[in-house]
Amino acid sequence: MRVLDQTRLPHEERYVDIESVAAMCEAIRELRVRGAPLLGLCGYWAMAIAAVELGASDEALSSAAREVKATRPTAVDLGAAVDGALAATLGLPVVERAAHLRLLAARHTEAQAATDARIARHGVPLLGAGSGVLTHCNTGALATGGLGTALAVVIEGWHRGLVQRCYATETRPLLQGARLTTWELLKAGVPATLLPDSAVPSLLASGAVKSVITGADRIAANGDTANKVGTFALALAAARHQVPFFIAAPMTTLDFDCVTGAQIPIEFRHDDEVGGFSGQRWAPAGVAAFNPAFDVTPADLVTAIITDQGVARPPYGESLAPMRRLQAEGG
Amino acid sequence: MRVLDQTRLPHEERYVDIESVAAMCEAIRELRVRGAPLLGLCGYWAMAIAAVELGASDEALSSAAREVKATRPTAVDLGAAVDGALAATLGLPVVERAAHLRLLAARHTEAQAATDARIARHGVPLLGAGSGVLTHCNTGALATGGLGTALAVVIEGWHRGLVQRCYATETRPLLQGARLTTWELLKAGVPATLLPDSAVPSLLASGAVKSVITGADRIAANGDTANKVGTFALALAAARHQVPFFIAAPMTTLDFDCVTGAQIPIEFRHDDEVGGFSGQRWAPAGVAAFNPAFDVTPADLVTAIITDQGVARPPYGESLAPMRRLQAEGG
Repeated sequence: MRVLDQTRLPHEERYVDIESVAAMCEAIRELRVRGAPLLGLCGYWAMAIAAVELGASDEALSSAAREVKATRPTAVDLGAAVDGALAATLGLPVVERAAHLRLLAARHTEAQAATDARIARHGVPLLGAGSGVLTHCNTGALATGGLGTALAVVIEGWHRGLVQRCYATETRPLLQGARLTTWELLKAGVPATLLPDSAVPSLLASGAVKSVITGADRIAANGDTANKVGTFALALAAARHQVPFFIAAPMTTLDFDCVTGAQIPIEFRHDDEVGGFSGQRWAPAGVAAFNPAFDVTPADLVTAIITDQGVARPPYGESLAPMRRLQAEGG
Repeated sequence: MRVLDQTRLPHEERYVDIESVAAMCEAIRELRVRGAPLLGLCGYWAMAIAAVELGASDEALSSAAREVKATRPTAVDLGAAVDGALAATLGLPVVERAAHLRLLAARHTEAQAATDARIARHGVPLLGAGSGVLTHCNTGALATGGLGTALAVVIEGWHRGLVQRCYATETRPLLQGARLTTWELLKAGVPATLLPDSAVPSLLASGAVKSVITGADRIAANGDTANKVGTFALALAAARHQVPFFIAAPMTTLDFDCVTGAQIPIEFRHDDEVGGFSGQRWAPAGVAAFNPAFDVTPADLVTAIITDQGVARPPYGESLAPMRRLQAEGG
């Protein structure tokens, strides 16, 4: 699997070949690859690589699966992909497993593009005409391997003349908005404005933004949504200013085993990521940090959830369930 | 006037002697000195310096006053100090003006310490016992020349055993929380935790914080409060989690000429401050930025305003007016 090393962006476009499970785990942990849907693809490719590298015995594949799943606990796609690949393979003769895992990975990579296109198609009509749109973190092609989720809605909305400008938060501490989203917006030719995460309420108070749209790492059955830390703050500001707040994500991001957001495991990352960036340190040594990678936005703040199966509105317990059945029936 | 260059903190404690109006204006614009109350003192000292450097004629002093006031429009203290010094001096014979301006500056510098101590005395009883307190930007000794405003309440609360830990936001884009507040907390021995601005709703959802307290740069007659950008987001998160949100500021920060926050002028700063820090750049070149230095927190989100004249509660139109009269009568 060849991936663009996202830690080097926007300054350098460096591709890395991943040829071992250890290299995949390192790339995921260090966020060389990131974004819930792309992590799902990484899960499939990690299992395909494992079968070649470590052999396709039950033990080798199960051990690789555990190792990959442990890298990042919040995004449901990663664990679901690894488990799905494992379940689809363990019943096969050992000699057929490597080829099957490779096929699965390729098929899901292809399907991602179609999923993203459907999300964009469902999402664009929700954007107000002639409007600014605010987004958070990075949810474009870099995050999915396809067109993206929330950012694909924005970019498609701009192509259709509905969106005039995209406002992107910096997204502390790892600055995915400042580094990646602006880079994608400039490449797509979309007028872009960057803002500190903390300036969101001011921006919404100014009236420049007609809708807020973000991705998701895991959505509970009741609509509570885990996404990059800061999403909850955007949702609070949107509610205050009566600006609609949308989540855009593939159905694979829905986790019906989580009844509410309280059951979603939240990844905490190193203290060092706060108080500095990329070797530069601005906080004094010895200060503790609170550094959750994600937060959970309560469902009551979410105007609609845009998926590849359509748009769900509150109450989500009722609106999401039929979409799940639709998907299970082969959507 | 000798000042600690706050742009060098926490890595270097470098003092700068300010001996000209131009040097004072540069120090204010570049945030070598900052914090609304300290800017007030800078206003007095700037006029004292002007009288020595440029002469004490009406023209020289009025021209210096205009130059100093133009540096930063949002903090009311700076303009009020400059106007106050000018008004108190223009009626005097020219030969007496320099000495009088110097006396005024010294008197206000001394008074600041007493004002801060009164704010801390009024504020501490509002903190819940055994609790974590969240603050934003820097409002300690560095911001006032005295003990500080909001941070003085926190530190005094810790000395009295009420506060167990202070949570400080990084405060993008200029990172005053990460650089200055943590530095002051470590010096004072207060247990400190740093967090990205965007992690505030998560932190409050965790229950670790029992009160939120910030300073102010200008408070309108109805209680709407201009403060460092991000304050509005803290107030929204506090309201959501039913955590009290306090403003701590000297009476000089109240501007009764502003009926509501809509009349407070908001300073916008350079695009370059967003998407990078201190020479390091993480956003692609050519991206526009939305970079207001301040935001306005609507009064309905403010639980109480702690001043040197006591604590005001909503409705602020009624509670602040008598405190103003008290002050006018020589408080």
